[in-house]
Amino acid sequence: MEKMKIVATARQVPERVVSNDDLAELMDTSDEWIYPRTGIHNRHVVENENTSDLAAAVAEKLLAKAGWAASDLDFIIVSTMSPDALSPHTSAIVQGKIGADKAFAFDINAACSGFVYGLSVASSFLSSRRYQKGMFIGAEVLSKLVDWKDRTVSVLFGDGAGGVLLESTDEEKGLLSEELQAYGDRGEAILTGRFANKNAFAGEISPLDPYFHQDGRGVYSFATREVPKVLDKALAKADLQADDVDFYLAHQANHRIIESMAKNFGQPMEKFPTNMVEYGNTSAASTAILLDELQESGQIKPGMKIAFVGFGGGLAIGAQVWQL
Amino acid sequence: MEKMKIVATARQVPERVVSNDDLAELMDTSDEWIYPRTGIHNRHVVENENTSDLAAAVAEKLLAKAGWAASDLDFIIVSTMSPDALSPHTSAIVQGKIGADKAFAFDINAACSGFVYGLSVASSFLSSRRYQKGMFIGAEVLSKLVDWKDRTVSVLFGDGAGGVLLESTDEEKGLLSEELQAYGDRGEAILTGRFANKNAFAGEISPLDPYFHQDGRGVYSFATREVPKVLDKALAKADLQADDVDFYLAHQANHRIIESMAKNFGQPMEKFPTNMVEYGNTSAASTAILLDELQESGQIKPGMKIAFVGFGGGLAIGAQVWQL
Ligand SMILES: CC(C)(COP(=O)(O)OP(=O)(O)OC[C@H]1O[C@@H](n2cnc3c(N)ncnc32)[C@H](O)[C@@H]1OP(=O)(O)O)[C@@H](O)C(=O)NCCC(=O)NCCS
Ligand SMILES: CC(C)(COP(=O)(O)OP(=O)(O)OC[C@H]1O[C@@H](n2cnc3c(N)ncnc32)[C@H](O)[C@@H]1OP(=O)(O)O)[C@@H](O)C(=O)NCCC(=O)NCCS
Repeated sequence: MEKMKIVATARQVPERVVSNDDLAELMDTSDEWIYPRTGIHNRHVVENENTSDLAAAVAEKLLAKAGWAASDLDFIIVSTMSPDALSPHTSAIVQGKIGADKAFAFDINAACSGFVYGLSVASSFLSSRRYQKGMFIGAEVLSKLVDWKDRTVSVLFGDGAGGVLLESTDEEKGLLSEELQAYGDRGEAILTGRFANKNAFAGEISPLDPYFHQDGRGVYSFATREVPKVLDKALAKADLQADDVDFYLAHQANHRIIESMAKNFGQPMEKFPTNMVEYGNTSAASTAILLDELQESGQIKPGMKIAFVGFGGGLAIGAQVWQL
Repeated sequence: MEKMKIVATARQVPERVVSNDDLAELMDTSDEWIYPRTGIHNRHVVENENTSDLAAAVAEKLLAKAGWAASDLDFIIVSTMSPDALSPHTSAIVQGKIGADKAFAFDINAACSGFVYGLSVASSFLSSRRYQKGMFIGAEVLSKLVDWKDRTVSVLFGDGAGGVLLESTDEEKGLLSEELQAYGDRGEAILTGRFANKNAFAGEISPLDPYFHQDGRGVYSFATREVPKVLDKALAKADLQADDVDFYLAHQANHRIIESMAKNFGQPMEKFPTNMVEYGNTSAASTAILLDELQESGQIKPGMKIAFVGFGGGLAIGAQVWQL
């Protein structure tokens, strides 16, 4: 076990709720189509915020909950596939906003696996003994990367952010194992955020296309088939059985995906809590938002074993097992 | 010391060379203006490649040099502020192209400090003992983020990629220390890559602006003032004097910045090699390209102490000291 603890969790979602019925006024869709196929009723979208605003709000809440000063932080990592900009990176904006004067900051991108991958990086900084106190936030404004005329993608995504504070410890708590994998040969299955590749000497090599495009069925079958295998490997590394884990917190892409995953993995849906009904798919933020809700409601308790599960763009996939 | 070694280095730059005279045909500028202020004569720009193509070429060269199979890799990290897309992430494309079937992959963004920050992440994975063999690449196609009518930025940047293979070792080699810092309150000094933030419910919150904008003088004085202090801290952590370090490999933004840095730091320019004369500023790639050139020419040898120095967008800054 790599010893460390999750000291606090927090979340921030934009106020504006957009229901399936709201979407039906914009495009040829309906709650009857969306809900049974995705488990999504609502999603929250920004009205004047960007990704760093959601992330900074999470950062402030995390510090308040833990009673830490901003200057206690050694580092701030933000996982996002929808940064404010390519420069400055979103984590640096957060660092500036909260005045974390001793922290360095960088962004990572592993798309919808961003929560698991970000926790992997943050935890390895603690395990290396180089740093003791870190902040990790998953934050997304996917509404800016969605073509709101395209019903095949716009109904799936939402905006939000969530995060954790991590600290080194001597207690018997920490990261038990992880298994991370990439399937870059299938990267075309989820596309978004392409600036035009052009310059004065070559002309346009490839055009601007900010919007999401996906092979929904391909992603669906990939996730339901591969995630259970990744979980098996992570558990084997920790010498655990599936029954030993109290909760499996999976990326909240789609209720049917998670049902099918749980079934293939042979564990009951009660161990796979969901909240996409209210937020849609918030990519790197989804698992962090879910974790904070379960913490708040008292369902997740110290001493429990939790597995985090990510899958999505890249295609990237991964699982981590924690002793809380 | 965190024990590990840099097993191989490699670089890839696009073939097409654009000289200051070429630029003078496009805009009101000249070699007489550009060269004395920046130390840049040429830059290389893509004609049909994107960031992942440059990175994948580096990846292939790294494996060939080390005699490693793609399947030996535990992870692939790409540092970039100019990814092919927000999804799939560039590292995943590289993973797919080289067939690294056991490696996971993610991108990091710390702008022009991307080389130092990426090495920090990669090395912490080894120090945590979770992984043994990693690939880290800095790769940029900045020519797609430059307005080629804007002489204040377009003359400064270039495209390229460079990287390293890292491996755990029991030899007395590895990372001696690092000092990383963020100044997010000054993030506006270097801006690039903003997708429009808009959705069907809020309208346009902020507009599309892919292009670089910078406060050149602000960045100049920041870098020359802060970098020497960061180097002092990194050296102090490693219990070293400035004279103990054989080479300082700084981000290749601008020759005058590096001269002024070396002077403020009290070390001769011979210890601060440069190559921006040929490549311009290639952000996360610059230090890796320089490292590979010095390795190739035999100037950098096993047993030496090397400091890597990054500064730029974020604003982020950092230094690492290595025992080769
Ligand atoms: C997206 C998803 C719900 C679509 O369900 P599906 O059964 O595969 O549906 P299809 O894409 O085959 O489309 C079926 C029909 O519904 C239509 N349709 C698509 N989106 C619709 C919508 N929002 N409302 C109404 N109709 C819709 C299609 O146009 C198609 O019509 P056609 O048969 O007339 O051409 C499903 O593929 C899925 O969950 N995929 C995983 C996506 C995901 O979670 N990605 C992120 C992973 S991180
Ligand atoms: C960019 C830099 C070379 C500009 O030099 P400077 O002396 O600060 O120049 P200024 O921006 O004040 O501009 C001076 C004049 O030159 C002009 N100018 C700017 N770029 C020019 C160009 N490429 N060719 C000709 N004239 C140019 C300006 O328009 C201005 O003209 P004006 O006085 O008529 O308005 C310098 O500020 C610098 O090196 N900054 C650091 C930038 C950097 O490295 N950033 C990346 C860090 S990772």
